[in-house]
Amino acid sequence: MAERLDVDLGDRTYPIFVGAGLLADSTRFAPYIDGRQVFVVTSEIVAPLYLDALRDTLSGFELDVCIIPDGERHKTLATYQRVIDELMTCRHNRTTTLIALGGGVVGDIAGFAAATYQRGVAFLQVPTTLLAQVDSSVGGKTGVNHPGGKNMIGAFHQPRCVVADTSVLGTLPRREYLAGIAEVIKYGVIRDAEFFAWLETNIAALLDQQEAALGYAIGRSCAIKAQIVQADEREAGERAVLNFGHSFGHALEALTRYETYLHGEAVAVGMVMAADLSVRAGWMNGADARRIRKLIEAAGLPVRVAGDIAAEQMLRAMGMDKKVVDGRLRFVLSRGIGSAEVTDEIPESMLRATLGNES
Amino acid sequence: MAERLDVDLGDRTYPIFVGAGLLADSTRFAPYIDGRQVFVVTSEIVAPLYLDALRDTLSGFELDVCIIPDGERHKTLATYQRVIDELMTCRHNRTTTLIALGGGVVGDIAGFAAATYQRGVAFLQVPTTLLAQVDSSVGGKTGVNHPGGKNMIGAFHQPRCVVADTSVLGTLPRREYLAGIAEVIKYGVIRDAEFFAWLETNIAALLDQQEAALGYAIGRSCAIKAQIVQADEREAGERAVLNFGHSFGHALEALTRYETYLHGEAVAVGMVMAADLSVRAGWMNGADARRIRKLIEAAGLPVRVAGDIAAEQMLRAMGMDKKVVDGRLRFVLSRGIGSAEVTDEIPESMLRATLGNES
Repeated sequence: MAERLDVDLGDRTYPIFVGAGLLADSTRFAPYIDGRQVFVVTSEIVAPLYLDALRDTLSGFELDVCIIPDGERHKTLATYQRVIDELMTCRHNRTTTLIALGGGVVGDIAGFAAATYQRGVAFLQVPTTLLAQVDSSVGGKTGVNHPGGKNMIGAFHQPRCVVADTSVLGTLPRREYLAGIAEVIKYGVIRDAEFFAWLETNIAALLDQQEAALGYAIGRSCAIKAQIVQADEREAGERAVLNFGHSFGHALEALTRYETYLHGEAVAVGMVMAADLSVRAGWMNGADARRIRKLIEAAGLPVRVAGDIAAEQMLRAMGMDKKVVDGRLRFVLSRGIGSAEVTDEIPESMLRATLGNES
Repeated sequence: MAERLDVDLGDRTYPIFVGAGLLADSTRFAPYIDGRQVFVVTSEIVAPLYLDALRDTLSGFELDVCIIPDGERHKTLATYQRVIDELMTCRHNRTTTLIALGGGVVGDIAGFAAATYQRGVAFLQVPTTLLAQVDSSVGGKTGVNHPGGKNMIGAFHQPRCVVADTSVLGTLPRREYLAGIAEVIKYGVIRDAEFFAWLETNIAALLDQQEAALGYAIGRSCAIKAQIVQADEREAGERAVLNFGHSFGHALEALTRYETYLHGEAVAVGMVMAADLSVRAGWMNGADARRIRKLIEAAGLPVRVAGDIAAEQMLRAMGMDKKVVDGRLRFVLSRGIGSAEVTDEIPESMLRATLGNES
């Protein structure tokens, strides 16, 4: 029983399948693979859990595997180069298909390898974390981090399809599952007040991983993301609203060397900051900001910076964020739950007040 | 007095300007630069010759420069990474514009950096070699070499414009100039019998770098390339005809570690081999093959492999070439001067005969 959503991008349109047990369903894979060669990129943690199942499903293909280390700090040009070296060693040609079996890090690296190996080969996303299922696997952003900033190297490269098997979330560590909820909440904040209210009511069922709640939340999240990506594939404008909370979150991750926070946790703190800044800017009322903070807390996610990061450090870390355009800091702020917009008209003093409040 | 050609690619359509003295003409640059930041990638050889002139022309912008070493053997992920590091150090943002001032290596690396820095920024090509002016600067192919094969890592990323200043060819070493003629001859072979005949008549004027002959040859070459790229931007089919002579040429370059042959020289030898194979396959008559060989010789270019490279080595080197699709070797062969097609139906024995003949 799978839900199918299409990301409508003209000749690059592709389906997202959401449902339990899809990893064993070869009809979700085979139609999207052109050649005989398949190259699976997966991680040290995911491989022992799901690689054999995927092998069985793809038994008709010539399959090579590259297992990379887990964690954001390995999302580097060096790991990317290992994947490319392995593709060369296994003599994969231009009709090969890369499959990312794993979380966001695996998807981003495998996607960037697919975008750039022989100037671009086919690519399937099989996200195994909640965060990857609702966010990073959809929309074609691929890339790696640079010591100077997150996702500074990358490409837009849409997958042929996304297979989100909800059964695999059962083995996901609790902390990673919760981190994924942060992005789910984000979709409510930026585009869908009704979904946000549904989350407030159903957060317990979702934390309990009840199948119906989970399927609905993932499907709704992917639908909102698909809608935004369709309207602005390469982030010329509107797509930037997906970065709500991310300017702050990315800075937090960079300052803590990607070691303290999971991406979703940093985004959770970042969303509380973005809501605070929205209130200071007169965009949002205090009640909405409190609802956002309360839902994030109810999801067991952090709402403030742990330890002591000075406002100055955050400012500097944000200054090199790629959301900067010609020297002006750009933010995604909300005019109330269900709406978000990009602005570059926030005075630094207001930003300092938000950062001072949080650090 | 500049000629303008458009490469028609929908919303990525861009002009190629061909003419003497264009480097000093800011109207060829400014309209194609969005932001304030400009980042010039150039080489140790080109920088002392033309960087100051470009600086003057772009005096209204914030300009940073990255000087990379010259030569195909530096077209590596390591050099690419230096460019990215420098972009980060100089804090270039998403609205920056990269300008490649140099030959094919500079253009390919700068283009790949532009394709992948912050998932893609604007890019201008200012080719300073004949080969780059007639070939590599047009069409959006960017990338670097892998120890296992040429151009194995890269992306399609179209420039905003190409500025081909013919005056700069005066300082080009003779050998590099001749190497560029190889690609000019290729256009005649694959698409334009009349142009090929013009080249036979005017080869002396062209070798003499007479302005009128040079302008005509560059303009005609770019027009043919633009036409082919328009029809098949991402090399799904027809664009592959541009690789006439290149399967052999790339193998030669790889086997000699990019140290013995300039790219155009390897292509010159490769075109003689491709013509020989075309004759063996019954596609081309011997007279046409002799005309091709004669014109290449008249241009002072090599027509056979120097030294001893065994047919076996060539076969192996060609086996990993990315023109291989699902295990079958693909070749671009000619059915006579002015036409070329892709085929994967050449028996290995025929290929061995051509290689045995040439080594």
